[in-house]
Amino acid sequence: MNRGWGKLKAFPGKLKKLGKDDPRRIIHSLKVGLAITLVSLLYYFEPLYEGFGVSAMWAVMTVVVVFEFSVGATLSKGLNRGLATIVAGTLGFGAHRLADLPGERGEPIILGLLVFLQASMMTFIRFFPQMKAKYDYGLLVFILTFCLISVSGYRDDEVLDMAYQRVSTILIGGFTAMLVCIFICPIWAGLDLHNLVANNIEQLACFLEGFGLEYFKTSEDEESNKTLLEGYISVLHSKQTEESLAIFARWEPFHGRFRFGHPWKQYLKIGSLTRKCAYRIEALHDYLNTENQTPQEIRSKIQEESIKVSSESVKGLKELAMAIKTMTTPSAAILHITRSKIAAKNLKFMLNTELFKEISDLLEVIPALTMASLLADVVSCSEKIAESV
Amino acid sequence: MNRGWGKLKAFPGKLKKLGKDDPRRIIHSLKVGLAITLVSLLYYFEPLYEGFGVSAMWAVMTVVVVFEFSVGATLSKGLNRGLATIVAGTLGFGAHRLADLPGERGEPIILGLLVFLQASMMTFIRFFPQMKAKYDYGLLVFILTFCLISVSGYRDDEVLDMAYQRVSTILIGGFTAMLVCIFICPIWAGLDLHNLVANNIEQLACFLEGFGLEYFKTSEDEESNKTLLEGYISVLHSKQTEESLAIFARWEPFHGRFRFGHPWKQYLKIGSLTRKCAYRIEALHDYLNTENQTPQEIRSKIQEESIKVSSESVKGLKELAMAIKTMTTPSAAILHITRSKIAAKNLKFMLNTELFKEISDLLEVIPALTMASLLADVVSCSEKIAESV
Repeated sequence: MNRGWGKLKAFPGKLKKLGKDDPRRIIHSLKVGLAITLVSLLYYFEPLYEGFGVSAMWAVMTVVVVFEFSVGATLSKGLNRGLATIVAGTLGFGAHRLADLPGERGEPIILGLLVFLQASMMTFIRFFPQMKAKYDYGLLVFILTFCLISVSGYRDDEVLDMAYQRVSTILIGGFTAMLVCIFICPIWAGLDLHNLVANNIEQLACFLEGFGLEYFKTSEDEESNKTLLEGYISVLHSKQTEESLAIFARWEPFHGRFRFGHPWKQYLKIGSLTRKCAYRIEALHDYLNTENQTPQEIRSKIQEESIKVSSESVKGLKELAMAIKTMTTPSAAILHITRSKIAAKNLKFMLNTELFKEISDLLEVIPALTMASLLADVVSCSEKIAESV
Repeated sequence: MNRGWGKLKAFPGKLKKLGKDDPRRIIHSLKVGLAITLVSLLYYFEPLYEGFGVSAMWAVMTVVVVFEFSVGATLSKGLNRGLATIVAGTLGFGAHRLADLPGERGEPIILGLLVFLQASMMTFIRFFPQMKAKYDYGLLVFILTFCLISVSGYRDDEVLDMAYQRVSTILIGGFTAMLVCIFICPIWAGLDLHNLVANNIEQLACFLEGFGLEYFKTSEDEESNKTLLEGYISVLHSKQTEESLAIFARWEPFHGRFRFGHPWKQYLKIGSLTRKCAYRIEALHDYLNTENQTPQEIRSKIQEESIKVSSESVKGLKELAMAIKTMTTPSAAILHITRSKIAAKNLKFMLNTELFKEISDLLEVIPALTMASLLADVVSCSEKIAESV
């Protein structure tokens, strides 16, 4: 009881935070409300009502179902729904006529068979990965419309009229949703993808920055900012988000600095390289745990070079993120990355010469060596990212 | 033109492969066909038709939309839809009565306002991560039903009748879908999750097995099986799949060896540890590339111990996967992992003593060292997995 009350009290605060984190959410909610209210006019005004009758509710339904957060998603759903309705409506009508041929008794058997075959086939096709990614919703609507048209046709012979009404109300609903979505504060999936990819690279830079400080901090230092170090975790799991954004982005028309045929696939490539880099960083992260730490004296020896490697990569990665954001050639980034490569080589060389003479126990340096070579891996990963920007 | 024809010719082959990869897909498709044909009877038999009228199509629609691949997903969607319809139907009726109070002129204004507020609020609530994961579909249906009932109520005063019809047809459709889904060759999300988690661990074992062979192969050897080495990639991206399966699994009733309140969260924990291990393995994978390779003589020295480490981990991981599958305590697995830990320590010790005396160039061994210490990381990761099984 008390727990429920506590949750209820926390609710307005959570709502506020949700809106503050991304104000576009509030705008989107208002847009949905607006579109639905607009379409409700279909029911409201007498003359339209006469024309469409009960089918008018399809318009409301279409708006509710089709209206998504980004323009690309809305367009993809709307076009899928519109096209599937038209095709399935035509085929359904054909099935209805076909079932009529053998007379009263054969009709239900043929209809049942056709519906069964169609539904099974389409459900199976939905398992195709390419189909699932792009046309899943269209296939669903296809099954639905086909069943409704062909079976309801059995009842009354106004099938054509019904099909016409369904198609036209869905078009009205779909267009209302798309127009509101595009012309009132549009939210572009393409822009989201663009920013996500750039931010992910920035997250890696943040981690490396924090890592340098954390790894070489002396025990007296204050507990440093852990959140800085955990930003990269979201990068690890960004694959699905990036892929769906890229699919939506392909549906979007010309907007902002993006043209038709913008190379969305390139973003996926950069994204997967960024993730590869993040996996190395995940392995590096382990070296912050105390059990894995190298003795203080060895650490202080490699401190200078290591920090140089990481700070140059940080600069490079930040420049890269900036270059993606502003869509320029990342010449400054390449410079920094080259420098960090040199620093990484120096670090290895130094380990080889100076350290090698002094140490007696190889076991002690293994973590440091591993760290250094992971760091070098990160650098070469970021080089690959730079190449593909 | 030629390309289109080629694609068309490849289509039947692809269909066959899709069915062969997972025969449950064919069964699922047939089940959907069956359920839809069953519900079409609602339209077909005269007496039922009299009772429900046009609303009968809601039953068809419910089946199409609710029927999902696994039992858990179907139940979750069906219950979401049923509950949302009942609640939103009641509230919609209330809104309709409320709007009636101020007379003919105020009605549309109040209705419009209510619809707008309701749609905006609910759309916003859908952004809550917890809501999105579990009740997203319910909220969508809520918006839809509320609009349909409250606005269509404006037209004719048979709202109650309409609400009753909609609720009852949806219940019929939902129950048909759920019954067919549960009683004809059910596909359990819980079982899928169970197998996925176990298989992911097995994939890691496969990689390590292949890695041992590949890393120490002499140049004369045949090109070995690369696919064995790439199974782990799917593990890296399994987070979302696991999470949605766990959500669905919670909706499922008692089945097989799974009871109510089965610890599905534990699977997520094991899954995330498995992924952590996979990230290390991704880093290890780099050491198969020729540019990173250690000279032959050094490799042959560490060969025996390294292979011992990896083969013991392989055995341990395989035992773990088996233990998860059969739901037994992984005592054999713990034994193997302890052994591989000892082997990893030996490997490090050997590197420290023997190798250290002979080598002149530390740079040459760095990759081998890093490899060894990543291997040790993998071992300690698998130890953590074993603890949480």
